[in-house]
Amino acid sequence: MATQGQVITCKAAVAYEPNKPLVIEDVQVDPPQAGEVRIKILFTALCHTDAYTWSGKDPEGLFPCILGHEAAGIVESVGEGVTEVQAGDHVIPCYQAECRECKFCKSGKTNLCGKVRGATGVGVMMNDRKSRFSVNGKPLYHFMGTSTFSQYTVLHDVSVAKIDPKAPLDKVCLLGCGVPTGLGAVWNTAKVEPGSIVAVFGLGTVGLAVAEGAKAAGASRIIGVDIDDRKFERAKKFGVTEFVNPKEHEKPIQQVLVDLTDGGVDYSFECIGNVSVMRAALECCHKGWGTSVIVGVAASGQEISTRPFQLVTGRVWKGTAFGGFKSRSQVPWLVEKYMKKEIKVDEYITHELTLAEINKAFDLLHEGDCLRCVLTVE
Amino acid sequence: MATQGQVITCKAAVAYEPNKPLVIEDVQVDPPQAGEVRIKILFTALCHTDAYTWSGKDPEGLFPCILGHEAAGIVESVGEGVTEVQAGDHVIPCYQAECRECKFCKSGKTNLCGKVRGATGVGVMMNDRKSRFSVNGKPLYHFMGTSTFSQYTVLHDVSVAKIDPKAPLDKVCLLGCGVPTGLGAVWNTAKVEPGSIVAVFGLGTVGLAVAEGAKAAGASRIIGVDIDDRKFERAKKFGVTEFVNPKEHEKPIQQVLVDLTDGGVDYSFECIGNVSVMRAALECCHKGWGTSVIVGVAASGQEISTRPFQLVTGRVWKGTAFGGFKSRSQVPWLVEKYMKKEIKVDEYITHELTLAEINKAFDLLHEGDCLRCVLTVE
Ligand SMILES: NC(=O)c1ccc[n+]([C@@H]2O[C@H](COP(=O)([O-])OP(=O)(O)OC[C@H]3O[C@@H](n4cnc5c(N)ncnc54)[C@H](O)[C@@H]3O)[C@@H](O)[C@H]2O)c1
Ligand SMILES: NC(=O)c1ccc[n+]([C@@H]2O[C@H](COP(=O)([O-])OP(=O)(O)OC[C@H]3O[C@@H](n4cnc5c(N)ncnc54)[C@H](O)[C@@H]3O)[C@@H](O)[C@H]2O)c1
Ligand SMILES: [Zn+2]
Ligand SMILES: [Zn+2]
Ligand SMILES: [Zn+2]
Ligand SMILES: [Zn+2]
Repeated sequence: MATQGQVITCKAAVAYEPNKPLVIEDVQVDPPQAGEVRIKILFTALCHTDAYTWSGKDPEGLFPCILGHEAAGIVESVGEGVTEVQAGDHVIPCYQAECRECKFCKSGKTNLCGKVRGATGVGVMMNDRKSRFSVNGKPLYHFMGTSTFSQYTVLHDVSVAKIDPKAPLDKVCLLGCGVPTGLGAVWNTAKVEPGSIVAVFGLGTVGLAVAEGAKAAGASRIIGVDIDDRKFERAKKFGVTEFVNPKEHEKPIQQVLVDLTDGGVDYSFECIGNVSVMRAALECCHKGWGTSVIVGVAASGQEISTRPFQLVTGRVWKGTAFGGFKSRSQVPWLVEKYMKKEIKVDEYITHELTLAEINKAFDLLHEGDCLRCVLTVE
Repeated sequence: MATQGQVITCKAAVAYEPNKPLVIEDVQVDPPQAGEVRIKILFTALCHTDAYTWSGKDPEGLFPCILGHEAAGIVESVGEGVTEVQAGDHVIPCYQAECRECKFCKSGKTNLCGKVRGATGVGVMMNDRKSRFSVNGKPLYHFMGTSTFSQYTVLHDVSVAKIDPKAPLDKVCLLGCGVPTGLGAVWNTAKVEPGSIVAVFGLGTVGLAVAEGAKAAGASRIIGVDIDDRKFERAKKFGVTEFVNPKEHEKPIQQVLVDLTDGGVDYSFECIGNVSVMRAALECCHKGWGTSVIVGVAASGQEISTRPFQLVTGRVWKGTAFGGFKSRSQVPWLVEKYMKKEIKVDEYITHELTLAEINKAFDLLHEGDCLRCVLTVE
């Protein structure tokens, strides 16, 4: 491409300060260095982690930065030594890298990868520990190793999943975060078996994807728990069979669920990020075997607690990041499953806007009827 | 036997009040009712659960009662409908019942059994919800469904494991609690694989049995953690390869272990009953896969806590009761393993006394060099 090796000037939504509206700016995006890939982002969705860092509550948040991590695009150019993708490939950025070489990747026990985390955790690229973004000569931090709220972004090659070019990018961008997180929590982390009784706390995108995954796994009952009654009608389409609103009960929600299920659920999933709900989700599990998976991300500094007796009597407490999926290996597989209509994606998209309208999209995130809002970036 | 169907008067150690010396009394032991087994106890050891209830700290402790749950004996007579054991059988009382019929037993996922818990939890027998023990006409509560600090005791048949009559009862009595708990925590609950790095917090009987189990499972490093340096020399014989005393470090013990192991251990076991150590045991686990098992029993009302991020990044928090062993099915198997010299038992017995000396045995429990003290009961 004509832009290869050149600095590209393009539009991006810059977060200059916590909790201040993002500003659409002309930013400069440097060419990819060794082991890096420059991507033209076509579509990006918003997720709560973007909102959390933007809010300033994340003590590790760095400003000014370019947020965004649930997206899809096309490779513009690649740096030295990059062999697995090339210009023109359709890709999904992966905040969870997969290098296939580090202790984590080789363990066969986790999808976490240690290769580039030391750089992505502090908003820079590994090669020179600098940013590839700048505005008026001043650097902008990267975010989660993805920074997809920009027409062009630069990623480490281990963070790029190459997908089927026939897949509609305006849909499969969702396979960059929330939907795989929910499906994988069920399939990889909990490994729900047919006939299981499942409770899902929080019926946003992640919780609905948990319900969908549980239905596919053959769960016999999928109990949705949300404080917002409006969530239920939609949740039925994703497999939720019963609905409980904690506000309508005097008893603690864990007791309500234990009573409803003759002793507790087989699997529970916390998809909110609330530490009290995480406790309830553990304690509504059946003695002897119930497993609770924490999917929601709590605010920094908050802690979960319970009586150790809950665990000594057989409950298991786990968590999941990106649903345990190995990103570069399995995101393309999820895209295939979507193409074969084996998993939903379109159904999670409730709003569509453009990058220029990103602040409105952030507002939508907090409205009850919004699951995912997809922004057209080009 | 001549005593069949009769009330038996025999010696027992009665706990009249919390924290007051036990009193050796002539007690009356009723004949077994339907589904019950009367057992002549020959040997009993002491365990921390006895001491905990005796101390009065257990809010569910009932007095006056007969404590004791780690023992061996011979069936004296059986009640109506009891088919799996008969007079003369050598047996180990099991505080964890196994009925093979209830939801728990049939789940295939747990060793907990629900059949008699409603009665044993409140110190009575299920048949008539009364006690089989009395002194001067006043009933004495049962304890853990076992009450082995007595020359005769009555158990539910689902709580009686029939063992090889050639096994030495003065040794295999230990297979009623502490040793199986430690071995099973490794083999059943954690399922430690060859090559794993293991940390054991607390090097009493339970912790040493964890070390022994980990060695048998092929662990490459077994790091023993104890605040009492005297524990180490003995621990080596049970498989501990390295020793860390938290008191000798300024850094939190979880950090010391993470540093020692290039990122954390694969499996950790808390064998103390201290909620702060339970947290440390979780947090010293390797990101991505480290699993921590709570074995120790904390005082009532105490809670464990951690940041949910510990679980979201792949650590797993579990617990175990009686090491996950199915009591009636697997205690006989453990006895066989002992007879074949595949597991240690004798090595855990550091003291031997008689039932009459039981108060001295309780004192010994708190001394550093005592693992198990076995009392001759006959
Ligand atoms: N672990 C991971 O890898 C990962 C990945 C993506 C998202 N997440 C996290 O998952 C969580 C859910 O994401 P989402 O996009 O579905 O969020 P969302 O805001 O769309 O959904 C949350 C739902 O929880 C409900 N809720 C709020 N408080 C509640 C309470 N006390 N009891 C019951 N329901 C309650 C809300 O009504 C809403 O329906 C967030 O914390 C997000 O950061 C984690
Ligand atoms: N889950 C079960 O089914 C089950 C069964 C039996 C026993 N238990 C429990 O297991 C625990 C251990 O039993 P045991 O008989 O081995 O006890 P023990 O008292 O013989 O051993 C405890 C060890 O922990 C050490 N210790 C104390 N505080 C410590 C600290 N802060 N850091 C490091 N080490 C410390 C002591 O020096 C001692 O060596 C008890 O809580 C007991 O109630 C549980
Ligand atoms: Zn996300
Ligand atoms: Zn890696
Ligand atoms: Zn015990
Ligand atoms: Zn049972």
